[in-house]
Amino acid sequence: MAIQTANGEAKKPRNKKYVYSFGGGKADGNASLNGLLGGKGANLAEMAGLGLPVPPGMTISTEVCTHYYANGRTYPEELTAQVQKGLARVEKIMGRQFGSRKNPLLLSVRSGARVSMPGMMDTVLNLGLNDETVQGVIQQSGNPRFAYDCYRRFVQMYGDVVLGLKPESKNERDPFEKIIEEKKAAKGIELDTEFTVEDLRALVAEFKAVIRDRLQISFPDDPQEQLWGAIGAVFGSWQNPRAVTYRKIENIPGEWGTAVTVQTMVFGNLGDDCATGVAFTRDLSTGKNALNGDFLVNAQGEDVVAGTRTPQQITLAASRERAQQSGHGEEERQQRYPSLEERMPAGFATLQNIAHTLEAHYKDAQDIEFTIQSGHLWMLQTRAGKRTTAAALKIAVDMVNAGVIDKRTAVLRVAPGQLDQLLHPTLDPNAIKNRIARGLPASPGAVSGEVVFSAEDAEAAAHAGRKVILVRIETSPDDINGMHAAQGILTARGGASSHAALVSRGMGKCAVVGCEALEIDYDRQQFGVRGASLAIRAGEWITLDGATGEVFRGQVPTSDPDPETPEFKALMDWADQFRRLRVRANADTPHDAKVARAFGAEGIGLCRTEHMFFEGERIDAVREMILADDTAGRVRALEKIVPMQKSDFRGIFREMAGLPVTIRLLDPPLHEFLPHTEEELADLAAKLAVSVDRLRTKRNALHEANPMLGHRGCRLGITFPEIYEAQTRAIMEAACELTREGVEVIPEIMVPLIGFQRELETLRTRIVQVCTEVSQKQGVTVPYTVGTMIEVPRAAVVADTIASVAEFFSFGTNDLTQMTLGVSRDDAGKFFPDYLTQGIFPQDPFVSLDQSGVGQLIELAVHKGRTTRPDLKIGICGEHGGDPASVQFCHAAGLDYVSCSPYRVPIARLAAAHAVLRQPASVKARKLQRTKKATTQPEAS
Amino acid sequence: MAIQTANGEAKKPRNKKYVYSFGGGKADGNASLNGLLGGKGANLAEMAGLGLPVPPGMTISTEVCTHYYANGRTYPEELTAQVQKGLARVEKIMGRQFGSRKNPLLLSVRSGARVSMPGMMDTVLNLGLNDETVQGVIQQSGNPRFAYDCYRRFVQMYGDVVLGLKPESKNERDPFEKIIEEKKAAKGIELDTEFTVEDLRALVAEFKAVIRDRLQISFPDDPQEQLWGAIGAVFGSWQNPRAVTYRKIENIPGEWGTAVTVQTMVFGNLGDDCATGVAFTRDLSTGKNALNGDFLVNAQGEDVVAGTRTPQQITLAASRERAQQSGHGEEERQQRYPSLEERMPAGFATLQNIAHTLEAHYKDAQDIEFTIQSGHLWMLQTRAGKRTTAAALKIAVDMVNAGVIDKRTAVLRVAPGQLDQLLHPTLDPNAIKNRIARGLPASPGAVSGEVVFSAEDAEAAAHAGRKVILVRIETSPDDINGMHAAQGILTARGGASSHAALVSRGMGKCAVVGCEALEIDYDRQQFGVRGASLAIRAGEWITLDGATGEVFRGQVPTSDPDPETPEFKALMDWADQFRRLRVRANADTPHDAKVARAFGAEGIGLCRTEHMFFEGERIDAVREMILADDTAGRVRALEKIVPMQKSDFRGIFREMAGLPVTIRLLDPPLHEFLPHTEEELADLAAKLAVSVDRLRTKRNALHEANPMLGHRGCRLGITFPEIYEAQTRAIMEAACELTREGVEVIPEIMVPLIGFQRELETLRTRIVQVCTEVSQKQGVTVPYTVGTMIEVPRAAVVADTIASVAEFFSFGTNDLTQMTLGVSRDDAGKFFPDYLTQGIFPQDPFVSLDQSGVGQLIELAVHKGRTTRPDLKIGICGEHGGDPASVQFCHAAGLDYVSCSPYRVPIARLAAAHAVLRQPASVKARKLQRTKKATTQPEAS
Repeated sequence: MAIQTANGEAKKPRNKKYVYSFGGGKADGNASLNGLLGGKGANLAEMAGLGLPVPPGMTISTEVCTHYYANGRTYPEELTAQVQKGLARVEKIMGRQFGSRKNPLLLSVRSGARVSMPGMMDTVLNLGLNDETVQGVIQQSGNPRFAYDCYRRFVQMYGDVVLGLKPESKNERDPFEKIIEEKKAAKGIELDTEFTVEDLRALVAEFKAVIRDRLQISFPDDPQEQLWGAIGAVFGSWQNPRAVTYRKIENIPGEWGTAVTVQTMVFGNLGDDCATGVAFTRDLSTGKNALNGDFLVNAQGEDVVAGTRTPQQITLAASRERAQQSGHGEEERQQRYPSLEERMPAGFATLQNIAHTLEAHYKDAQDIEFTIQSGHLWMLQTRAGKRTTAAALKIAVDMVNAGVIDKRTAVLRVAPGQLDQLLHPTLDPNAIKNRIARGLPASPGAVSGEVVFSAEDAEAAAHAGRKVILVRIETSPDDINGMHAAQGILTARGGASSHAALVSRGMGKCAVVGCEALEIDYDRQQFGVRGASLAIRAGEWITLDGATGEVFRGQVPTSDPDPETPEFKALMDWADQFRRLRVRANADTPHDAKVARAFGAEGIGLCRTEHMFFEGERIDAVREMILADDTAGRVRALEKIVPMQKSDFRGIFREMAGLPVTIRLLDPPLHEFLPHTEEELADLAAKLAVSVDRLRTKRNALHEANPMLGHRGCRLGITFPEIYEAQTRAIMEAACELTREGVEVIPEIMVPLIGFQRELETLRTRIVQVCTEVSQKQGVTVPYTVGTMIEVPRAAVVADTIASVAEFFSFGTNDLTQMTLGVSRDDAGKFFPDYLTQGIFPQDPFVSLDQSGVGQLIELAVHKGRTTRPDLKIGICGEHGGDPASVQFCHAAGLDYVSCSPYRVPIARLAAAHAVLRQPASVKARKLQRTKKATTQPEAS
Repeated sequence: MAIQTANGEAKKPRNKKYVYSFGGGKADGNASLNGLLGGKGANLAEMAGLGLPVPPGMTISTEVCTHYYANGRTYPEELTAQVQKGLARVEKIMGRQFGSRKNPLLLSVRSGARVSMPGMMDTVLNLGLNDETVQGVIQQSGNPRFAYDCYRRFVQMYGDVVLGLKPESKNERDPFEKIIEEKKAAKGIELDTEFTVEDLRALVAEFKAVIRDRLQISFPDDPQEQLWGAIGAVFGSWQNPRAVTYRKIENIPGEWGTAVTVQTMVFGNLGDDCATGVAFTRDLSTGKNALNGDFLVNAQGEDVVAGTRTPQQITLAASRERAQQSGHGEEERQQRYPSLEERMPAGFATLQNIAHTLEAHYKDAQDIEFTIQSGHLWMLQTRAGKRTTAAALKIAVDMVNAGVIDKRTAVLRVAPGQLDQLLHPTLDPNAIKNRIARGLPASPGAVSGEVVFSAEDAEAAAHAGRKVILVRIETSPDDINGMHAAQGILTARGGASSHAALVSRGMGKCAVVGCEALEIDYDRQQFGVRGASLAIRAGEWITLDGATGEVFRGQVPTSDPDPETPEFKALMDWADQFRRLRVRANADTPHDAKVARAFGAEGIGLCRTEHMFFEGERIDAVREMILADDTAGRVRALEKIVPMQKSDFRGIFREMAGLPVTIRLLDPPLHEFLPHTEEELADLAAKLAVSVDRLRTKRNALHEANPMLGHRGCRLGITFPEIYEAQTRAIMEAACELTREGVEVIPEIMVPLIGFQRELETLRTRIVQVCTEVSQKQGVTVPYTVGTMIEVPRAAVVADTIASVAEFFSFGTNDLTQMTLGVSRDDAGKFFPDYLTQGIFPQDPFVSLDQSGVGQLIELAVHKGRTTRPDLKIGICGEHGGDPASVQFCHAAGLDYVSCSPYRVPIARLAAAHAVLRQPASVKARKLQRTKKATTQPEAS
């Protein structure tokens, strides 16, 4: 490619750097090149730069991966020369030659993405062996058995990973393992270690033969061919289905690509002065500041992973602890699993030093891979160790206390979403589990219970003190009490924002939804799973993991959380010091309000009044109101409801004393309150002394083709003014009474579904009138505000006019997302999986705000609203208020607060702090992203 | 009120002018002050200015009306003095005094709005009479009977209009008429004219007595009190329910207000040399250039309206024509209804001259009211005459040909919406009608037929050659064939954009929808009307008026339209010369395409493919496709559909040879194609040889909570790629075949419901692939484009990214309105009436585009789309494409074309011309409106 320079000369561009060497005390790159070299490559370079003992090698950058996929799986022209140059450097450092029969260099070829994707991609070890170079290894090591063991491992691994020899059917075993098993059987031996050199040599030949037979190709003897085959296989594995799925779950962009690290092999399997292992600079489960880890003597890394041998503890202390737990005496311990500290004290000391160096250098707990070859310790990897939330909190707080990091860094060390772990029970990781299905992880937690198929059964069972899981095709507001009574909810339909999901999250109750494989049969009181021959009957135990969406048969033991640790409190305190966004909770009951306040909520951002309508006998009055023929009839029924609502509001105001409480007037269409089945209809008819026919007619008349876009929200307020008037009266009476009792009350009356300025103007006038009346009658003045939800796209577009009559905006991002995207969350299950798989949605837009679509409307509304009313208070009360990425967006968009379910309040608090701490970078990134979008890049990227 | 001047002095504002005098050859105002003086007042001033004989008077401006309602029904301070001054001027001109017993002046007090609202507001005549002034009138006229007749009329009219004496119950007759009837009975006479002076004097006393009895007030004898009472009553009548309803129907803003004209009474009832009448400078029914009109000898204006006496013709020619029609001889004619031309030749000659003067002055056909008092002709009103569309066309074209007006003026003289009249039959205005209900006028025309309650019955009856009206609670795609077979459609539910309305308009078929009073009973095969005790059974005849939404019992005669007049063609030609917007049609069949082209469509903007799926046996293949378990099964079924669709496309392409045809790929959710009833389900199961259970399960699995926001449009294309591939294949095969046959084909493939750039990118890639394949196979290259509908709000917001992969945009404003407003058109019937009544919607947003909401998104999308792709072709294909106001918006927004139903193409063509001709004013107006909105005005105003 030729580039035209300013003075018109055509000039060949400088060679682009694709290969980064490291080792021998030097490195081309360092940890900051994470994006280019992958985590593994960047940290190897960093360690080499620090002078730590890293086997020399080179990393082929992720840009090559991008090029590879953009150009029909070919490499940039310059790559071959750069790899050869890198290889020559390694050969020089090691004093060995790749492919030499006398003094051969063996290599490992490994993947390395920007973030760790453990086990998802391919690796090839012991590369460079053939019938000639194996002789060189025998000479180097003086150990023919070791050399042939390596050769056997290499052919097996290369045959699998690079050449692709897999079982031909599901029932067939791995062809290589089959050969090994047959040979063991023929020889009457049990362990690999019992093979002779001759056996191993024969295995190599047999492996090559099966490859030739099955694949019609010869095993490549040329080390260069082996090398490029392995590099291609690693790049190819970036798109294997396993990796693609993993990225989808972890939200890792497919465009990042993987780097490939080619590195000198070091051997932990060269004899009893050799070992391989993993170490952690702190306990990543508890956060305790103590080096720990596992190792195996005379083994290669894959043996640790394979689990055929039980690893030993690195430290003496840990080894002793294990012995104590197992009831082993000191002698038995020393014999069976002595620590590295005892077994190879020099290696251990080096490891300990390096661990200290690395932690001091990275200022974070490290996860280290090492190999000791003939007493010499080599570092193969270091990275920030994955830790439990509890550990993350403790490590961060400890490091602040030790002066290693500042509070800012500590706050950023804990991912907001991680806090979820702390706030809900989790399944015991060591328990045996029988997974029968997997749905969408709608609301976290881990619970077990007997299966019930109706809300009534759930309530009855709960009354009887039994724990149940409510299993429904989907849930409706009628199921609320049953959901309350159940330990958890499992549904076959609905997405992350279905009724079941929303309500469960609101209740902090574990839920798995949209488990499409379930075949629920209410009549037979059982469910099956598509593709599996099983039937779970009512009364049988199942367990849900709300964090993963998994459904297990039987009762899996769980461990309870305790968020109230000193570390949690310290970190949340620091977070609160940094954040600008206020955090409120969505809470409909005094109980929810109390929980929310305990979690740090600074008010209620959404108090839904409709849930109150379902409780106890209220539903009868509500139904009477709906069935009334005229305003007078409705008013009569409403008069029964007002005192009940008032008492709810009193309770909520009291819990939130001194903090604002946003109460949303009635939102759902009236038919949601009517019974669904004929039986319930008959019951209601008897209760109200009207004919079933009349009831049915009324219900049918209220039926809607698209209830989401129907007669609901403020439209009810316009057509039946008495409903909102009654609710307003209940709110203000409660507020006045409490004020007289000395409780500070800050009510905010919120009108849902506004699309037109005149809607709000009309309703606001009536609301103010009622408030004034109540206030005068009670002789108390309570300051209150009237505002609206922005959830209809039109409201965002005409926010300037609406702001003239609204004192606050609250983005109802659930509905705003539904309408802006034209997607019903209840029906999305049919196509969302395809949309997520094909990358049309980068993420479920009901879980994380669609920033480039819905987000633009939010920004528009904020801008227009504040143009009319500069002091307009603006918040968000959709489910997105508890999603860290969405919280960050809300911060950048200039909102005043987010509101989320009580159990997500700490998450939002931490996310709000992150938003401030990350702001400069994130603002830049967003701007960059927009520029890219406007030119060539797909918006979703 | 004091105003602060720049140098700080407080200064009294100059008296604002509220009263405009006219008469005596001079006038304060003229016709351009229409908004201030109302049509009547402005034209009286104009005539007075021209020196025409206008009884002197004054007009109180509409600003007083605005002040009146804004200030608790009080007047501006200055008004009294200004009225007195105006009155003094009149007294001076006439040489009479208001309230004088010797030489009294009598007045009329009339309303006059900016546009005529005939009969909606109040009038008081003969004002100024009491027991004393009546003596003066006797002296002036020498005719006591006349004087008391005036007095009787005045008290009756004032008692009704100003004092508000109305019947006390529905069953009671008018109390004044009751007294008259009783007197006649007592005297044994039949006609008013038989009353003696004494009788009339007694009637006046009795009228005053009943007023005193019923209302507890004395009839005001003071002429000043009478005058202010009448002025107040006229202003008050602006808000009477009749006027409010009329304004709502005619879209007249309530803020305009009415003016009040106070004018010297002239009397057509002073003897046989007196007359009163109406004249038209041209025939307003046919447009023929001939003076015509009616008059009555010795009568007041109200007598012409009352219809108790049959008026006579003004011209001899008309009188003779009438005689011919009635079979009367010349003698009988002369005796019974001689013309004004014969009866009062001098008065007629003056009238003829004035008529010429006025038409020449106004350059338009005039509607004139006159009175001849003792041989002297007075002009009471002139205005542009309301005319039929045929007359409008002929008058405009004739005036261009006569050099009176230019083409531009001619085009502007015909309101686009008026053309509807020409394109559909209309009810005979003279027929006797029995109206039983009124719904929404969804699709124009006037039709009669026997009532049927199912699509099948409609088809069967049509086969048998019978005319039927299909009466349904609501319609679904299953009813298409029945709708085709019926003369018209009547539904109880749904709004102007319901399925029934949309499909009917598309078919050019008369429809009345959302007739909520209907109580349809399918079982009994009859319908009733709420509040009426009648039952219309299947087989009974009814008549629909699609222009008014009226439903009549029985068969009302209709007259057929003939749009193909030379005047129609000439005017449309001129319109085409002015417009910039292209006009296309929405057409799904070759027949529709043909009709559309005949109406001047320049291509098809929306060809829906789903309607094709319902025809004949296709639906079976479609259902087989839906029920298939896998891709292979769907492909098999689709292979049956492709040839059928191909043949449809061939037909449409052929009709539209040389013009672009936009074909929308499948849009509705699949469940719309499945049967609804259990019986149909059983039939289908038998046909497909599957179990009813399996069918039901499938149908239930496809059920959606909000189908509008569900699995439809491009989402089907993403999840079932084979459907769009098959449709694309059918399109391209048809296009290639026809191209080879020498037909010019311009296919535009349109993907519905796009919200994300990647959706379109993904689908576009596949579409292009299929097109290329077909093209290569057929050896023909057909230029085609791939574009998208913009109907999901998100698509408008991210239009810049979507434009990178779309070659054209077409705004689907039906769905865009639904989603932007969050309103399902199917469910809107429950609250739209309240929204329209309360002025929240200025107009039904499904009929006329919501410019301030949806319109902003359209403007945004146009801007963003053209930023990415400057040559992006942009159109609109929602129902709004045929609404004149929306067409004007589309023009201003810079769209390239509008597309509407074939029968609205001429309307759109004319509206597009109006948009150009009105542009400077309209652009200014829109800007002004926006500025107002942003400050204080409600957006909807």
